[in-house]
Amino acid sequence: MTFTHDDQRHERLGMPEAIVCQGKDDASVNLILTELIAKPDCPTLFTRLPQDMFDRLDSALTNELDYDSLSATGILHGPLPKNSGSIAVVTAGTSDLRIAGEAKRTLEFSGFSTSLYSDVGVAGIHRLFDRIDEIKTHDVVIAVAGWDAALASVLGGLVAQPLIAVPTSVGYGVAEGGGTALNSMLASCGQGVLVTNIDNGFGAACGAIRMLNQLKSSD
Amino acid sequence: MTFTHDDQRHERLGMPEAIVCQGKDDASVNLILTELIAKPDCPTLFTRLPQDMFDRLDSALTNELDYDSLSATGILHGPLPKNSGSIAVVTAGTSDLRIAGEAKRTLEFSGFSTSLYSDVGVAGIHRLFDRIDEIKTHDVVIAVAGWDAALASVLGGLVAQPLIAVPTSVGYGVAEGGGTALNSMLASCGQGVLVTNIDNGFGAACGAIRMLNQLKSSD
Amino acid sequence: MTFTHDDQRHERLGMPEAIVCQGKDDASVNLILTELIAKPDCPTLFTRLPQDMFDRLDSALTNELDYDSLSATGILHGPLPKNSGSIAVVTAGTSDLRIAGEAKRTLEFSGFSTSLYSDVGVAGIHRLFDRIDEIKTHDVVIAVAGWDAALASVLGGLVAQPLIAVPTSVGYGVAEGGGTALNSMLASCGQGVLVTNIDNGFGAACGAIRMLNQLKSSD
Amino acid sequence: MTFTHDDQRHERLGMPEAIVCQGKDDASVNLILTELIAKPDCPTLFTRLPQDMFDRLDSALTNELDYDSLSATGILHGPLPKNSGSIAVVTAGTSDLRIAGEAKRTLEFSGFSTSLYSDVGVAGIHRLFDRIDEIKTHDVVIAVAGWDAALASVLGGLVAQPLIAVPTSVGYGVAEGGGTALNSMLASCGQGVLVTNIDNGFGAACGAIRMLNQLKSSD
Amino acid sequence: MTFTHDDQRHERLGMPEAIVCQGKDDASVNLILTELIAKPDCPTLFTRLPQDMFDRLDSALTNELDYDSLSATGILHGPLPKNSGSIAVVTAGTSDLRIAGEAKRTLEFSGFSTSLYSDVGVAGIHRLFDRIDEIKTHDVVIAVAGWDAALASVLGGLVAQPLIAVPTSVGYGVAEGGGTALNSMLASCGQGVLVTNIDNGFGAACGAIRMLNQLKSSD
Amino acid sequence: MTFTHDDQRHERLGMPEAIVCQGKDDASVNLILTELIAKPDCPTLFTRLPQDMFDRLDSALTNELDYDSLSATGILHGPLPKNSGSIAVVTAGTSDLRIAGEAKRTLEFSGFSTSLYSDVGVAGIHRLFDRIDEIKTHDVVIAVAGWDAALASVLGGLVAQPLIAVPTSVGYGVAEGGGTALNSMLASCGQGVLVTNIDNGFGAACGAIRMLNQLKSSD
Amino acid sequence: MTFTHDDQRHERLGMPEAIVCQGKDDASVNLILTELIAKPDCPTLFTRLPQDMFDRLDSALTNELDYDSLSATGILHGPLPKNSGSIAVVTAGTSDLRIAGEAKRTLEFSGFSTSLYSDVGVAGIHRLFDRIDEIKTHDVVIAVAGWDAALASVLGGLVAQPLIAVPTSVGYGVAEGGGTALNSMLASCGQGVLVTNIDNGFGAACGAIRMLNQLKSSD
Amino acid sequence: MTFTHDDQRHERLGMPEAIVCQGKDDASVNLILTELIAKPDCPTLFTRLPQDMFDRLDSALTNELDYDSLSATGILHGPLPKNSGSIAVVTAGTSDLRIAGEAKRTLEFSGFSTSLYSDVGVAGIHRLFDRIDEIKTHDVVIAVAGWDAALASVLGGLVAQPLIAVPTSVGYGVAEGGGTALNSMLASCGQGVLVTNIDNGFGAACGAIRMLNQLKSSD
Repeated sequence: MTFTHDDQRHERLGMPEAIVCQGKDDASVNLILTELIAKPDCPTLFTRLPQDMFDRLDSALTNELDYDSLSATGILHGPLPKNSGSIAVVTAGTSDLRIAGEAKRTLEFSGFSTSLYSDVGVAGIHRLFDRIDEIKTHDVVIAVAGWDAALASVLGGLVAQPLIAVPTSVGYGVAEGGGTALNSMLASCGQGVLVTNIDNGFGAACGAIRMLNQLKSSD
Repeated sequence: MTFTHDDQRHERLGMPEAIVCQGKDDASVNLILTELIAKPDCPTLFTRLPQDMFDRLDSALTNELDYDSLSATGILHGPLPKNSGSIAVVTAGTSDLRIAGEAKRTLEFSGFSTSLYSDVGVAGIHRLFDRIDEIKTHDVVIAVAGWDAALASVLGGLVAQPLIAVPTSVGYGVAEGGGTALNSMLASCGQGVLVTNIDNGFGAACGAIRMLNQLKSSD
Repeated sequence: MTFTHDDQRHERLGMPEAIVCQGKDDASVNLILTELIAKPDCPTLFTRLPQDMFDRLDSALTNELDYDSLSATGILHGPLPKNSGSIAVVTAGTSDLRIAGEAKRTLEFSGFSTSLYSDVGVAGIHRLFDRIDEIKTHDVVIAVAGWDAALASVLGGLVAQPLIAVPTSVGYGVAEGGGTALNSMLASCGQGVLVTNIDNGFGAACGAIRMLNQLKSSD
Repeated sequence: MTFTHDDQRHERLGMPEAIVCQGKDDASVNLILTELIAKPDCPTLFTRLPQDMFDRLDSALTNELDYDSLSATGILHGPLPKNSGSIAVVTAGTSDLRIAGEAKRTLEFSGFSTSLYSDVGVAGIHRLFDRIDEIKTHDVVIAVAGWDAALASVLGGLVAQPLIAVPTSVGYGVAEGGGTALNSMLASCGQGVLVTNIDNGFGAACGAIRMLNQLKSSD
Repeated sequence: MTFTHDDQRHERLGMPEAIVCQGKDDASVNLILTELIAKPDCPTLFTRLPQDMFDRLDSALTNELDYDSLSATGILHGPLPKNSGSIAVVTAGTSDLRIAGEAKRTLEFSGFSTSLYSDVGVAGIHRLFDRIDEIKTHDVVIAVAGWDAALASVLGGLVAQPLIAVPTSVGYGVAEGGGTALNSMLASCGQGVLVTNIDNGFGAACGAIRMLNQLKSSD
Repeated sequence: MTFTHDDQRHERLGMPEAIVCQGKDDASVNLILTELIAKPDCPTLFTRLPQDMFDRLDSALTNELDYDSLSATGILHGPLPKNSGSIAVVTAGTSDLRIAGEAKRTLEFSGFSTSLYSDVGVAGIHRLFDRIDEIKTHDVVIAVAGWDAALASVLGGLVAQPLIAVPTSVGYGVAEGGGTALNSMLASCGQGVLVTNIDNGFGAACGAIRMLNQLKSSD
Repeated sequence: MTFTHDDQRHERLGMPEAIVCQGKDDASVNLILTELIAKPDCPTLFTRLPQDMFDRLDSALTNELDYDSLSATGILHGPLPKNSGSIAVVTAGTSDLRIAGEAKRTLEFSGFSTSLYSDVGVAGIHRLFDRIDEIKTHDVVIAVAGWDAALASVLGGLVAQPLIAVPTSVGYGVAEGGGTALNSMLASCGQGVLVTNIDNGFGAACGAIRMLNQLKSSD
Repeated sequence: MTFTHDDQRHERLGMPEAIVCQGKDDASVNLILTELIAKPDCPTLFTRLPQDMFDRLDSALTNELDYDSLSATGILHGPLPKNSGSIAVVTAGTSDLRIAGEAKRTLEFSGFSTSLYSDVGVAGIHRLFDRIDEIKTHDVVIAVAGWDAALASVLGGLVAQPLIAVPTSVGYGVAEGGGTALNSMLASCGQGVLVTNIDNGFGAACGAIRMLNQLKSSD
């Protein structure tokens, strides 16, 4: 097997180099690690690298990674230089932290500053109101929620910032797999709420990076 | 065709006698009207009787009905005697008024007092907060919403009363047909939110009547 | 990780404090247990805590729990003081006992008295008729069923009490996951049947508690 | 266009010759009528021929049909000679009569005797019990129901005869189109309930005919 | 836990007593076995009892069972006395043998004679034609198939006997879980094909038993 | 509105120039017709142009079209020069002729010779066997079927030629819209059956043209 | 009926005041028009106001609107003052112009400058490459596509700007209703592609406005 | 158990003899291996034989196989004699190599020459353009992709060859299981793209073989 890296991505799009580990076998990830460890000028984010896969990989390789188990991410040759722009990552419940973490790590790897506001789901809406003024001080807001994902709709009516909604697969029954959260976010009455695939914290971060890069380029 | 009326329903269950007109042809509805007009001791609610069907029916029969076009309901030999118990019917948007009206008319036919709180969707959440104290004064709350139906979740965290959620088929794209609203209500993080079929304002009213009857019987 | 408890829930809504363990990792549950064990004035119900997770947690912590394996629930600092009001929990088959148990334990933790009527599915309808008079003596009826969930419809025509229907994920083929039972309950011809998410015994109990609290407050 | 009739069907399978009109344009149906009117030895049933299509066809042709509007069926050169065997067709509500009628007309065209038991849905289960002994006197039972289709499950536990369940597209919300009734019948706890496609009264009749022919052939 | 057996089922419906083991925990199955082993006059079929569960159960109890691993069935105090009537069980591929076996064992437990015709899927249609004359000698035909389930449609045009179609969950991609086979069988152009739930070999056998009992009773 | 024609398509891909009329308003189609009538060197096929739209368009423009109502196609400046290669278009029922016609007209416009074999569905399989030898004389076979689409699977086992399967939206109940036919064809046990979108007779023809062009180019 | 306008929306969120006409009856829209015509300081966009509804409304009212039939939008008391920031609206086919127009009109009403690039779908990818340099000169890119929506993925790899993808309901078969386009955009391999509900051109514009407002506020 | 091999398949259809191992138990595969090892004139391909099953089988038997772990295929008594005709197998990402490998191995077993072009997904479209001229030199192109499967649409506009699209189950969220890739390929704007079941690399190869055999036979 050979591995064809799209190594023009960062230059072309300003987007972080990233490797999705899920769906690859251990041998492939070891091979990719080997190739990229040898390229110190190519900082790379490894996503969807869960602890059990991490433990099975060649430790001589994984020792090179700045690894975070909760978000299942590893950073190689990073982070990138500091960028201006700050992002609020807001979650409905503690079970959403895995995906919120993926977004946060992607942004931090890319040099942006982030703040996490967790456990502010709308079933106890006073928790959200307690923190809404602080949330509004950021350039972009990322809302991460499973179940009915009502958080995105309520936030959509409270903040004027760009708002990216990430549905999570958290929940059982009709919520299982995240389809209800996804549809709820797409059908949100909050104007201009933009949505990613289920559990795609990385994609939400990339969407925010596109905005923040544009902000910078238009200065 | 003969028509076998379950005429023990009110006595057995304390539930209003009702005829769903949708799915029946005009001849059948005319027949049913004729039979029931002759039974003044059998007050009956006709639901899902839209204006165009109403206009096609025998006007000698429909003249006996107290008809309401928005809710598509007609009342014959009603309403039932006054009952104690009051219900708040709350809607997210003006497009939900058809279904909210069906619930309201069913309750009023059954002798209960109702209040309507419309256009209090959570995308502009100040509108809900302006009226929440008044909503809390009722015995039961019925929340009617389409799209993402986030209203039900927010209400679930604000009121302690029994809360019945009615998803509506209002919306386009992923919201079309009401499946997203339904799933969102079922997956609601608000504890103890109970749900009816899509567009089933009548069923929500019947659920409330069961509660209010029990309230009375347990005095 | 910090844990933001919505500790005003019981006071605000009269609803039991509860922690859903499913979807959380062991470390998080241990952390939450530690925090709440230190708050004896905060009785809490742990739901969706299956035996295998229970066995993996810190036994110094789990020893504080009144644990029930079948319903996968643990009670800390409970139960709450006795409340007036009784609930019938009715199941179609023995496989529904897990979810029926979740409802029953939630109600008992909250101080309400419950009776369980199991194995009364309508395929052998004499079993239901044998017990229907006893079921009718309660304030609220909770029907728990998988497969075609016909029990809810039949009960809806037999009891005048508030009726909460809980679909379960029991079944294979088209019944797998509980979607058929859910839709069947939502489409029930029984008037005023109110429905929860699949396998949501806890939510059904909370719905009943809202009713029983209202009953009390209106005395 | 030419029309290739499978004219060996009755001889080969003992099944009625039948033409489904739905999905064909008027010209095609006129052509088929012309061809078959000329074959008096080929008795044929036309199904899914609604009143408005019937009215648009060439009246010189349709005058040859024994037409029934409710069941949308027309019989040409029929019925077939009397057969032994009787079938009970049982419906949950009046809206199911269209499909029940299709089954009944197919059976009568084929020479079998049928009885219709309508409006015996389980929401008022006393109506079913009033007629169950009479239903049990037939050789085969066909249950026709929409919504939650609980009738099939209850019947499955009450009659020992072969039981064919026909889901109908009657209902709104989750019941719309008949998918819920179909799944509910497939998932029925009643043992040995056999199911047809949604609204397929003709298919149910054919299934019964296979059984009754076999009964006869095994005498 | 107590176990409420519907022990009038055989007498009332002529259907085999049966216990579905899937969805029950080991303790429950051990309990049920204990109770029923003590009732020699109550012959019972245990279905969906896979080898791994069988191995985990109390061997003092399972020794009483006539167990078959492929069909995952166990027979206690059986079989029932010989009945007249024979059934052809026909499968498309070897992967369908598990479900075909469940049907076959149910019928044999109930005293009926069966023949198995396997690997006659229509992709090599000469294999079916080689055996069709023999298949036609039976009273009832059960067709078991996954994937596109075209076998049922082809058989429907070839045999005049009652034809019961059992979709199986065999297949990957769009065939996974058996939904395509189910829908294909329901939409079959073969007239009077009757269908069971996915993988419900037991239900198909019960449907056949209803027919064969009726055949006998009408002699 | 301006209209950007991909006028290199025929040269680049050897595929016919085609305009899908469905989804465009009348004004747009009139505009496109005007532009293309002025380009006699650009033979174009108009697809999904139903009779009622055709009648509403500017007759001065539509007079230039070779129009066929059944297939809803119009040919402008055609057909293309004769090509070698012949295609068998095979349909299960007469209702499939609309889509079979779209395939046939596309191929004839493109200069290929075609034969139509209609009404050879497998419920009366002798009709297919009567014509199979003739079908096998073509270079490519296109199978067009709705409902359970079993025709594709049976053909897949009988012909060695490239076989393109086109599911149609013909059918009711679970067959409605063509999803069952599509999945059945995708899950076909016939090896190497290739499938198009539902009702995509044009696409099937294009797939055949790619093959026949390749055949020619490899001579 | 009364109409509760969320008239703080523009001030609170910088989002255009807008009324969705679809789902409202004519009387309601006439009422809303009357109220808002009287408020010249409240510029409002009417969306989903198709020509036939427009023609049925009170012409004394509709005369006040700047109406556009293709996009089904009407502007009252507009447009808002010029804003800095430019948006490229890119469509795959001419059938997507209705939704692209809704986005364009919303942006123009809100004072932003837009350019439309239509008919650049990837089936003829040279058309996209011809215009990509010009597209890249804008601050935000909105991609509008139905069918397989591959345009969004290809654009995602070519432009570094924020990219908002709008699936349209254009297409038949599996594409019908827009679900395939939606899922394809959500699953896009292009990093950071953000998605709206099906046919939600208005929402895409609002998402872009959030970004452009933030750009301005961060200057 | 006996095993009925369709041993006329190669002769009748020119298609490779193949055994799908998935869905069979180990004993059955061992039995089939034993039978076929004894028939050296019957070269056979074993598909969906994953490494863990391979390791569990009787090594005396599996030693006879030319086994490839990535594609989960084993070749017995192969390959077949060299055939003329070459196929390009093109993949979007490295995770698609498992299915691409199944296609490639089937073709090589059947004597055709293949080239693999991997990692040319359209998110970095320059990678595809770098290799497109080489891809065009083959007789047939097979495109293998998961996620949004945009590769198939872009290829459809670039190559004139027969194009077979294989959706893979690679992806998470809405892409999980491959349904989005499947629908995207079916809805492709690229003309004449033909599609197989999800993950059906074998079927794609068989489709190509039908074409290449026809090419040969028409020489």
